[in-house]
Amino acid sequence: MFKKTLLAVSMTAACLASASSLAAEKVDLLIKNATVLTMDQDKTVYDNGLVAVRDNKIFAVTDGSDLAEYKAKQTIDADGDIVMPGLINTHTHVSMTVFRSMADDVPDRLHRYIFPLEKKLVSRDMVRIGAQLGNVEMVKGGVTTYADMYYFEDEVAKTVDQIGMRAVLGETVIKFPVADAANAEEGIMYAVNFIEEYKNHPRITPAFAPHAPYTNTTETLQTITKLSLQYDVPVMIHLAESKRENQVIAERSGGKSPVEYMAQIGALTPNLVGAHVINVSDSDIELLKKHDVGIAHNMSANIKSAKGVSPALKMFDDGLRIGLGTDGPMSGNTISTIDEFNQVAKVHKLVNKDRAAMPPIKVIEMATMGAARALHMEDKIGSLETGKLADIIVVDTKAPNMVPVYNPYSALVYSAYAANVKHTIVDGKVLMQDRNMLTVDETAIRNEALKFADTVRKTVVESGEIVQ
Amino acid sequence: MFKKTLLAVSMTAACLASASSLAAEKVDLLIKNATVLTMDQDKTVYDNGLVAVRDNKIFAVTDGSDLAEYKAKQTIDADGDIVMPGLINTHTHVSMTVFRSMADDVPDRLHRYIFPLEKKLVSRDMVRIGAQLGNVEMVKGGVTTYADMYYFEDEVAKTVDQIGMRAVLGETVIKFPVADAANAEEGIMYAVNFIEEYKNHPRITPAFAPHAPYTNTTETLQTITKLSLQYDVPVMIHLAESKRENQVIAERSGGKSPVEYMAQIGALTPNLVGAHVINVSDSDIELLKKHDVGIAHNMSANIKSAKGVSPALKMFDDGLRIGLGTDGPMSGNTISTIDEFNQVAKVHKLVNKDRAAMPPIKVIEMATMGAARALHMEDKIGSLETGKLADIIVVDTKAPNMVPVYNPYSALVYSAYAANVKHTIVDGKVLMQDRNMLTVDETAIRNEALKFADTVRKTVVESGEIVQ
Ligand SMILES: [Zn+2]
Ligand SMILES: [Zn+2]
Repeated sequence: MFKKTLLAVSMTAACLASASSLAAEKVDLLIKNATVLTMDQDKTVYDNGLVAVRDNKIFAVTDGSDLAEYKAKQTIDADGDIVMPGLINTHTHVSMTVFRSMADDVPDRLHRYIFPLEKKLVSRDMVRIGAQLGNVEMVKGGVTTYADMYYFEDEVAKTVDQIGMRAVLGETVIKFPVADAANAEEGIMYAVNFIEEYKNHPRITPAFAPHAPYTNTTETLQTITKLSLQYDVPVMIHLAESKRENQVIAERSGGKSPVEYMAQIGALTPNLVGAHVINVSDSDIELLKKHDVGIAHNMSANIKSAKGVSPALKMFDDGLRIGLGTDGPMSGNTISTIDEFNQVAKVHKLVNKDRAAMPPIKVIEMATMGAARALHMEDKIGSLETGKLADIIVVDTKAPNMVPVYNPYSALVYSAYAANVKHTIVDGKVLMQDRNMLTVDETAIRNEALKFADTVRKTVVESGEIVQ
Repeated sequence: MFKKTLLAVSMTAACLASASSLAAEKVDLLIKNATVLTMDQDKTVYDNGLVAVRDNKIFAVTDGSDLAEYKAKQTIDADGDIVMPGLINTHTHVSMTVFRSMADDVPDRLHRYIFPLEKKLVSRDMVRIGAQLGNVEMVKGGVTTYADMYYFEDEVAKTVDQIGMRAVLGETVIKFPVADAANAEEGIMYAVNFIEEYKNHPRITPAFAPHAPYTNTTETLQTITKLSLQYDVPVMIHLAESKRENQVIAERSGGKSPVEYMAQIGALTPNLVGAHVINVSDSDIELLKKHDVGIAHNMSANIKSAKGVSPALKMFDDGLRIGLGTDGPMSGNTISTIDEFNQVAKVHKLVNKDRAAMPPIKVIEMATMGAARALHMEDKIGSLETGKLADIIVVDTKAPNMVPVYNPYSALVYSAYAANVKHTIVDGKVLMQDRNMLTVDETAIRNEALKFADTVRKTVVESGEIVQ
């Protein structure tokens, strides 16, 4: 009798479980027990929420009360850790990782050191090796999408395809001979071929990357603008970055600022993403807004090079499309957006003489939705919302620097290191779990980079250049 | 025949090994295959060097050619990683970790938020719990010595004794009622008792910590100065930090600056360590130099609070005793000196409009020998030299953000995270190995801190204060 009753109870339980599982939403990945920063319009935060992923998209983001309704192939228990949109790095030169920590403080470094160095050493191999290393650094730092400007960008594309990240990759066009083009015309041809090859890639957006207004002719900039509208691809450019640029452009245009000049020649379009944007007036900012230009704000690189502080806070508050970037590894020098947080928050406070300026929530917005808007990708990425692409990171809140968390935005901005990122998910696929890379061989990539660094050392010594 | 020969060869090898071992220097710890940054007078770097430790002292630092001469109880193969002096944090309030990420951007925060919060929540337990958490953070970030100013400093001392760090611990004296003293007189008594208790501790230097000139009377500052010379202990103070301080002191002293006022009342002595030192004139700097005052430079906290940038580079170049500090975890917000490197290097470049200003080697000197000089401990710590105390850290150069290393100072300053510190050794003892804490239970410490944070949340909510 007793036994029979037990059996009946357990059968009922089984039936209930079965019924529940019949009603369950089948998802591929479920992240539960999470402090979810959605970065949606209302900045909704769930203290004990969940994020469900089906295929490569976000299926649901909730307060966790419906946890029992999901049946997941894979479940990650966040155990209270922060779950947020993957970070978007709006500006880098990923392959330059292989040159990192060289001659950091040389005056007029771009022209005196970097261009000559690149002339000797940029190659398909260098681009591939550097990109692989930088991709690992970014995935381990929570970057899920990045925007790159360099040479042999098809090599970068192969590494992005392999590791599983998302990227906007701009092939450089510049007026002097470089490794993959003898002149700007060849650079444009290279870019067009690259764009045609990658136009339909699910995670890669190919783009034009004229180096800067002052390193290209008006004609080149106009040709690129026209082609970018024709192919409907982004144009990424260094803009209003240096005093030298302002001088050259003023001479060329009869006294115009770089932004005014770009407007005059028809190169300010919604396809344009300008990096740095330091030396701009209020009327320049109005022009950028009017033409719906995206902006990459690279605090770390700008202060390291003593170029100054972009009025990024004003541009953000004025509603411009602006997000954080790291610039390249010879500039920043690390390329995880999280490394910028601290500096962005604090330096804007310093220059505005106001400790309330640039609060953490704005910094996080500029690293997620702001950056998505800068790249005109805000419909697809930048927040955790149903239907968006599943680019998600989990940030460890148990590392001693992260304890305790009264305010998750503050903890991220003022305390987190890139190394606190625990899991990185792109397009619904886990690329890093518990800090282990799942789609590439980190050790092999590091060893190849270290071997290439030996070549760099040898070349630099032989050429008589001095490494500090 | 063949077999016999082999045997003979192997016996010869054994004899040689035995002979070598008879001649060997017996040491307790040997770190080999290291990129050694000695931070000695000549800034000697060994590419493949070794550091040998006997008891709690450095026995030898060499280029590694004599590796076979050492017989060590424990050997660490650095495998090319950076080995350098332990970092010295010249200014913090370690116990405040339990308040980290609260109300970060509130204007006039010290007086409007922090003092009231402390009135409600500072206790022996709070001080112990916060110090334990902060100690773990610092050891994991490569800090081997720190200077602290807070209440119940004897509780901090117990945690420092237990974990095995080195510290200068200053008991706070302030003119209004606080948790461990009803007034400044009681604060002085508390400090004297603490100093007598810890005067002979091998790793702890007890000290007076008058909060600031403007939060103490002239009489209190003079009494402390006299007692500090009598006990031969440091006096740590916040100095020339805020405009408010300058106003109060000017009113009190007939227009003097805080530094001039301290000189006038006889409180500038070689025992004094001033934190921040932002609002100082060239003549103030001369006074500080003349009186051999130590200085703690806390860039991160100073820019986060929009207080401005200390002329730390000038003071360093003028030969003053100056080192890096983090300030407390409500200010900085992390407390590993390595977190300051990036900001110190870059913000001084920004304000000096010179990318060559504050090169990485100066930053590293301010984190090691400069900091040791600020605390008047340069004969004992701050560099890797024979006879000095064995405070040593190993920094991982294989993490992707650290690859490659052309210049180790640049890599440390522009690329490293606290989480890149691999091993931390204090007084010859390994406190952290491969990021595992060996002398304390990190999980238990974290859980106690998280539990205390719940009390903080409850208290703050009940008292009507608002956490951002
Ligand atoms: Zn750039
Ligand atoms: Zn302080």
